[in-house]
Amino acid sequence: MPDFKLAPSILSADFARLGQEVYDVLASGADIVHFDVMDNHYVPNLTIGPMVCRALRDHGVSAPIDVHLMVKPVDRMIEAFIEAGATYVTFHPEASEHIDRSLQLVRDGGCRAGLVFNPATPLNHLDHVMDKLDMILLMSVNPGFGGQSFIPGTLDKLREARRRIDASGCDIHLEIDGGVKVDNIREIAQAGADTFVAGSAIFNARSESDPHHYDAVIQAFRDELARVQR
Amino acid sequence: MPDFKLAPSILSADFARLGQEVYDVLASGADIVHFDVMDNHYVPNLTIGPMVCRALRDHGVSAPIDVHLMVKPVDRMIEAFIEAGATYVTFHPEASEHIDRSLQLVRDGGCRAGLVFNPATPLNHLDHVMDKLDMILLMSVNPGFGGQSFIPGTLDKLREARRRIDASGCDIHLEIDGGVKVDNIREIAQAGADTFVAGSAIFNARSESDPHHYDAVIQAFRDELARVQR
Amino acid sequence: MPDFKLAPSILSADFARLGQEVYDVLASGADIVHFDVMDNHYVPNLTIGPMVCRALRDHGVSAPIDVHLMVKPVDRMIEAFIEAGATYVTFHPEASEHIDRSLQLVRDGGCRAGLVFNPATPLNHLDHVMDKLDMILLMSVNPGFGGQSFIPGTLDKLREARRRIDASGCDIHLEIDGGVKVDNIREIAQAGADTFVAGSAIFNARSESDPHHYDAVIQAFRDELARVQR
Amino acid sequence: MPDFKLAPSILSADFARLGQEVYDVLASGADIVHFDVMDNHYVPNLTIGPMVCRALRDHGVSAPIDVHLMVKPVDRMIEAFIEAGATYVTFHPEASEHIDRSLQLVRDGGCRAGLVFNPATPLNHLDHVMDKLDMILLMSVNPGFGGQSFIPGTLDKLREARRRIDASGCDIHLEIDGGVKVDNIREIAQAGADTFVAGSAIFNARSESDPHHYDAVIQAFRDELARVQR
Amino acid sequence: MPDFKLAPSILSADFARLGQEVYDVLASGADIVHFDVMDNHYVPNLTIGPMVCRALRDHGVSAPIDVHLMVKPVDRMIEAFIEAGATYVTFHPEASEHIDRSLQLVRDGGCRAGLVFNPATPLNHLDHVMDKLDMILLMSVNPGFGGQSFIPGTLDKLREARRRIDASGCDIHLEIDGGVKVDNIREIAQAGADTFVAGSAIFNARSESDPHHYDAVIQAFRDELARVQR
Amino acid sequence: MPDFKLAPSILSADFARLGQEVYDVLASGADIVHFDVMDNHYVPNLTIGPMVCRALRDHGVSAPIDVHLMVKPVDRMIEAFIEAGATYVTFHPEASEHIDRSLQLVRDGGCRAGLVFNPATPLNHLDHVMDKLDMILLMSVNPGFGGQSFIPGTLDKLREARRRIDASGCDIHLEIDGGVKVDNIREIAQAGADTFVAGSAIFNARSESDPHHYDAVIQAFRDELARVQR
Repeated sequence: MPDFKLAPSILSADFARLGQEVYDVLASGADIVHFDVMDNHYVPNLTIGPMVCRALRDHGVSAPIDVHLMVKPVDRMIEAFIEAGATYVTFHPEASEHIDRSLQLVRDGGCRAGLVFNPATPLNHLDHVMDKLDMILLMSVNPGFGGQSFIPGTLDKLREARRRIDASGCDIHLEIDGGVKVDNIREIAQAGADTFVAGSAIFNARSESDPHHYDAVIQAFRDELARVQR
Repeated sequence: MPDFKLAPSILSADFARLGQEVYDVLASGADIVHFDVMDNHYVPNLTIGPMVCRALRDHGVSAPIDVHLMVKPVDRMIEAFIEAGATYVTFHPEASEHIDRSLQLVRDGGCRAGLVFNPATPLNHLDHVMDKLDMILLMSVNPGFGGQSFIPGTLDKLREARRRIDASGCDIHLEIDGGVKVDNIREIAQAGADTFVAGSAIFNARSESDPHHYDAVIQAFRDELARVQR
Repeated sequence: MPDFKLAPSILSADFARLGQEVYDVLASGADIVHFDVMDNHYVPNLTIGPMVCRALRDHGVSAPIDVHLMVKPVDRMIEAFIEAGATYVTFHPEASEHIDRSLQLVRDGGCRAGLVFNPATPLNHLDHVMDKLDMILLMSVNPGFGGQSFIPGTLDKLREARRRIDASGCDIHLEIDGGVKVDNIREIAQAGADTFVAGSAIFNARSESDPHHYDAVIQAFRDELARVQR
Repeated sequence: MPDFKLAPSILSADFARLGQEVYDVLASGADIVHFDVMDNHYVPNLTIGPMVCRALRDHGVSAPIDVHLMVKPVDRMIEAFIEAGATYVTFHPEASEHIDRSLQLVRDGGCRAGLVFNPATPLNHLDHVMDKLDMILLMSVNPGFGGQSFIPGTLDKLREARRRIDASGCDIHLEIDGGVKVDNIREIAQAGADTFVAGSAIFNARSESDPHHYDAVIQAFRDELARVQR
Repeated sequence: MPDFKLAPSILSADFARLGQEVYDVLASGADIVHFDVMDNHYVPNLTIGPMVCRALRDHGVSAPIDVHLMVKPVDRMIEAFIEAGATYVTFHPEASEHIDRSLQLVRDGGCRAGLVFNPATPLNHLDHVMDKLDMILLMSVNPGFGGQSFIPGTLDKLREARRRIDASGCDIHLEIDGGVKVDNIREIAQAGADTFVAGSAIFNARSESDPHHYDAVIQAFRDELARVQR
Repeated sequence: MPDFKLAPSILSADFARLGQEVYDVLASGADIVHFDVMDNHYVPNLTIGPMVCRALRDHGVSAPIDVHLMVKPVDRMIEAFIEAGATYVTFHPEASEHIDRSLQLVRDGGCRAGLVFNPATPLNHLDHVMDKLDMILLMSVNPGFGGQSFIPGTLDKLREARRRIDASGCDIHLEIDGGVKVDNIREIAQAGADTFVAGSAIFNARSESDPHHYDAVIQAFRDELARVQR
């Protein structure tokens, strides 16, 4: 049974008190801080950059920070997030002219490297880089656009990615991002994912009056994951 | 005597507790929240986007928020920051193919519009748009790069901008950004600026133990400005 | 036996009297108006945009209009052609950062969506989007360049595309564009195409003195198609 | 008194019967066919390209065709419109890295060359090219966006452009485009324009039942121009 | 047994006396002049262009010149190198919107055409163009970056490329570039390569005092290749 | 009387024996090696990069090397040419988003900095950077295109640039490039230039049999310059 990881996306957190939000969600049992970087070029939105990552580290956050670069080109941001304390840095194959080199850049900086696949992006970008990867992230919605639901075809894509990982013999996490909820996480895990990004599904539970506001939702995800059979 | 405005740049604030930082610096007497948006294309850095602005408004910040777009192109970000509660939206003339239209977009959205001039950018971009402007921002360092001092030639450029504003009869703020310190703000004000961005010069006074940490530095700026003679 | 469709490309029509040209070719038995949009960026030519599509609809054209976008990026043109009355909107996978989302945009606008493959573009862009497609268009010449003949290797590619469509169980048209003539359309249909774009092969029959100028060539195509065996 | 020219913009004509529209508006007394080319990159729209220009020439149009390139880059389109029978080719200084060379390209192709100024674009782009110009076009609206009125500040800009032309001693037309109507054309002419683009103001008079549909509006413009005093 | 070819990359030669360098290395037994073109856009470096190729031809070099375009876009450089006397012109599939057309452009100019694969680029770009190719070049380092070693996974990729070539029945060279040394060339040849680029491994033997300075290293490569068993 | 400098452009030299060419032309009395860098993006050609500059230095060239960057963007090439031994680095104002910063980058690297003006580029880009400049280069042809003659209007532009330099009190060279010949250099010098780029006018005198092949043409230029009166 894999070691499932929950990775709340801080894009849905309260940016006015981000340090406290991250502290709370980790205290409630989340494993990884998921950090979505958009540059208004690769996707039609602009979010947060390396300084915000740095601030979390300076604030004492020691959990893994998983930086998903929705930017193009990627190399300068890779370098900036290595400096800023990232743990994982993932990027889209369409966003780098030199994917192998960008993956190496991440690892040479002491971080873990990953590739992210848009819903329509074929998995054959994996053909020659499995030994350079620590993470494969499948998008189950289109990144950078709001109000979307989990794209059902992603389940098949997860199974194919899982087969590729198992065949490679490499130690690679399989992460899923987009429309993950309590009521579908089990099915998603069965299809092969082991790391789960959730944004509003977690942070909508926010309540400034209750210090344990995120406990229940995190536990609900955990309960579902405990029932996964593979 | 003009009504001088102090506009702390939150790029130097603590992003882990940004709401509190903004509250504190306004409580200490700052007038305007200066909000620097970088997209890793127009400048080699990526900072914060509309969601962070929205979070400040949702946190109760009612002071003017002065959004400086260091992005290219600008129109989609203009629309996003109008939605996010900006008061001023300023952009660089080099960053829009249709400057007149972008300025109109800002005003049509109920915000105040401005143009920003890099240190080497000539002021003749002002020739045909004075009636569309609420703000002219002169950069006294190169935006997006760290560790720079106030470029002395900006004083002459401020004088020329002031002459253009006075000749136009329009009600336009003249803002300065880059290397503004207690020991040069008076000279800068004498040259014609009325709105002053300061980043580290203010936020370096941070002290989480002292609730009035920003009082002294804001007062020091005010004292200097009180001695300006024009 | 499939329901074969003929789609004359109006790029070869007389633009000075386009409404009449479209009326005539439909009266002669064509099924679909094929509309080629080039932006001088994705291809080295600039043709016609949404206003021309709108004019055809305003002129009373009720046949399907099949818009092939040779533009990059695609989303703004998708929206414009939805407004302008398009029936199909197809685009190249290389021309969108977010293919799944662009396909959804077409369908959300009430149009039918398709992907277009340049002669060298692999078909694996189809891997995860078959359920989002109403049309697959294979280019049998390089779009945007003149004076080319049907590329023979496209026959094999048609067979592979046909296999993918049949395997998917989805209702997807398989269109071919480039060098389709009376003397090769049968072979092309045998390879799996069901929708045929032809430009000069049809419009070269133009004769302003004969109101039935396009009857003979359309009939010649039909005769060939009637002999297809699959 | 200058020889005033009326240049109807065919962007407002009926594209389904463009040849007839152009014939009618010239028969009603228009002087020049104004042809607006947009590429969905320099401006957010895509209109018509060289093939449509060629079709007008093939249809027997012998009046000057005045091609306004709202495209970037410009050189390939310059060459295409020379081939397609353009008389004037104008482009924006922001849209060419090598303005002097692009102007030469137009003239070397036997066409007349011009520069176009967006509402906010300063006139100092004229400083070193007056001897290469046959036309200066001032935009009095932002090109590529709909529903705009004549920008009043353009009158001053016209006067400055007129002064520059007179001082140069060169034979250069001064054209205006955007929001020109019967009720403001006189004032615009007084400010120095001699060539007037009008789109909907002319083509809104369309009536397929009246062969002289454009006579009245063209005459109304002429009457106003007859009263100009300089 | 294939006819193995050695292709010294002149990027490691002495540019102050390039004609002599090329003469010497060919005299020592090299077969092909490998010519690396970088444009500071597709890769982060700028090297040498068509004029340098032309100078070699004018200097009397009659050996094949194998031009590897690390530029984007490619078509203008293809035309320039055809003019400049290239024998082979290869480019990256990511660098052309119209790969089939660019390959044709090379052959129409009388040169031999090839595609180059970055370490992470999948080979399915070959699916529909085998009959248009004279060369497949696999990069075993990331082009444009210094100080890299042969990427071991390239051996498997070579085997897959070799299978595709054999299956196609086409006459296509399989070239390898990056980290090729005397001590690994045999293994690389066994995996399927028949043309070997080497830069510093050859030119580091430079000695202006010894007219036969490159003999030994070329012979060492030859000796290894003579021991290949397939 | 200024100290006139002759700067042969090595773009017209023999690239197969560039070290010898540079040695010869300096021995004949040239002052500066002019080095034209084109990237096939800012101009439609690709020439030579930093490695070639480095090779000249390694070959013992100690004369000033004056690098004219016809590339966009400029910063990475600035850094590369500082490393490669450049003396001057000049670039076009249109090619940098941050001109002041790029100029500083040149000087911080120990080189001398300059701006280059295309024939149509206005001089007001000089307004705020005179104290950052060591060189102003006026192009008297359009860079990157062949077969052009000296543009006569450049003489007036030289006079204006000379006035700006004199008024600034700064020590700035005024260089001219394009169509400079023995029969017009005197007039050009009278208009204010002090540094003269010449390409084919010098290197066409090449003769491999005469070790002093460039003496006569250099002397002819010198003789003309000796007759300048200012």
